[in-house]
Amino acid sequence: MHVHVNAAMSADGKLSTRERRQVEISGATDFARVDRLRGRVDAVMLGVGTVVADDPSLQRFDTESRASTHGADAAPPARVVVDTRLRTPTDARILAGDPRTYILHGSTAGADRRAALEAAGATLVEAGSERVDLADGLDRLDGLGLDRLLVEGGGEIIYSLFDRRLVDRLTVFLGPLVIGGRQAPTLADGDGFLTAFPQLSLEDVSRLDEGVLLEWQVTQDESG
Amino acid sequence: MHVHVNAAMSADGKLSTRERRQVEISGATDFARVDRLRGRVDAVMLGVGTVVADDPSLQRFDTESRASTHGADAAPPARVVVDTRLRTPTDARILAGDPRTYILHGSTAGADRRAALEAAGATLVEAGSERVDLADGLDRLDGLGLDRLLVEGGGEIIYSLFDRRLVDRLTVFLGPLVIGGRQAPTLADGDGFLTAFPQLSLEDVSRLDEGVLLEWQVTQDESG
Repeated sequence: MHVHVNAAMSADGKLSTRERRQVEISGATDFARVDRLRGRVDAVMLGVGTVVADDPSLQRFDTESRASTHGADAAPPARVVVDTRLRTPTDARILAGDPRTYILHGSTAGADRRAALEAAGATLVEAGSERVDLADGLDRLDGLGLDRLLVEGGGEIIYSLFDRRLVDRLTVFLGPLVIGGRQAPTLADGDGFLTAFPQLSLEDVSRLDEGVLLEWQVTQDESG
Repeated sequence: MHVHVNAAMSADGKLSTRERRQVEISGATDFARVDRLRGRVDAVMLGVGTVVADDPSLQRFDTESRASTHGADAAPPARVVVDTRLRTPTDARILAGDPRTYILHGSTAGADRRAALEAAGATLVEAGSERVDLADGLDRLDGLGLDRLLVEGGGEIIYSLFDRRLVDRLTVFLGPLVIGGRQAPTLADGDGFLTAFPQLSLEDVSRLDEGVLLEWQVTQDESG
């Protein structure tokens, strides 16, 4: 499984306002870049917080990059929601349309929610109990033929993936504005590291739209 | 008054861990860059949160850049603490040594604290009441001959300066690690903007040490 995290943040590291309202951070060139990334992967992953806040459909992708990596008649990239308690609304846009949608959930999720989301078209994948076990969940997705994953947020799922040492690559568009806010979502939220910070290696940095694209490889963990 | 904010943050926008413990984010080349910046300004400013958390002395600066901008016999850059209630400890390192230390405080600060900090060598500057009025405070500093200011954090004072539209320039070293944490200090904390986000213009971006140096000018505010 190859895990690529991609996100757009403000110059001060925020993904959105403290009210979780989306802000225009990047521009047309960056959107096109993300569409190409989506075309190349088997699935695009989001945390349920982002699904609830933004109701994205995740149906856009670049058909050329898909054809060149998956063949001319390839299915669109699947969608994956990490959602321990199955809070995804049954009318969420991420459940509509052609691409398959997998929901990684915990064993404690209620039978009524399971039935409702399956009826809404989702494919449920159980991994962990009180909390989704991401390493196990990614193994299960791999077993379903999804071995290249693009993670588009939010900050909780991104942190959890770093915490489990599951991230291979991180690309970040840094936009020309300040959002601020001690409660605003950041690129990596969660409890945060106090030691053994994930270490990155800068592969490339370039101007894009009115901001900067940073391309990092995740290297070894810092011991300690 | 020219206000330049400079900080080092992790790839996910954090200044330190959620416990406010400093983390090695940048390296020797960036430290030398900051020393040159300090040499060029009249004063270096910190918020009291950073003074309490890190107990910095702010005495380091590059003597060549000072001589070339302020003359061979110039005094070292002054230090400014923004500290509404005068919480700065009397034994704080920022009060020791040759450079003058100004403390911007509110009119509600207690007489005992005023006396203690003046006895410890601080020059008190009153601006605002329940909270330091930064626009007024910067005007007062300007009146004292300090018209080039370098602000080195933390996230609360940086946000407040952006909120009052007092920042002219923002330089950020972005380091090759993830700190994470929804409670970890970020480059701009405070309440956060919900609209009228401060807009930046990218002047330069370059690799430095193992990370990236971003140099922004603050441009117009976005209306809205």
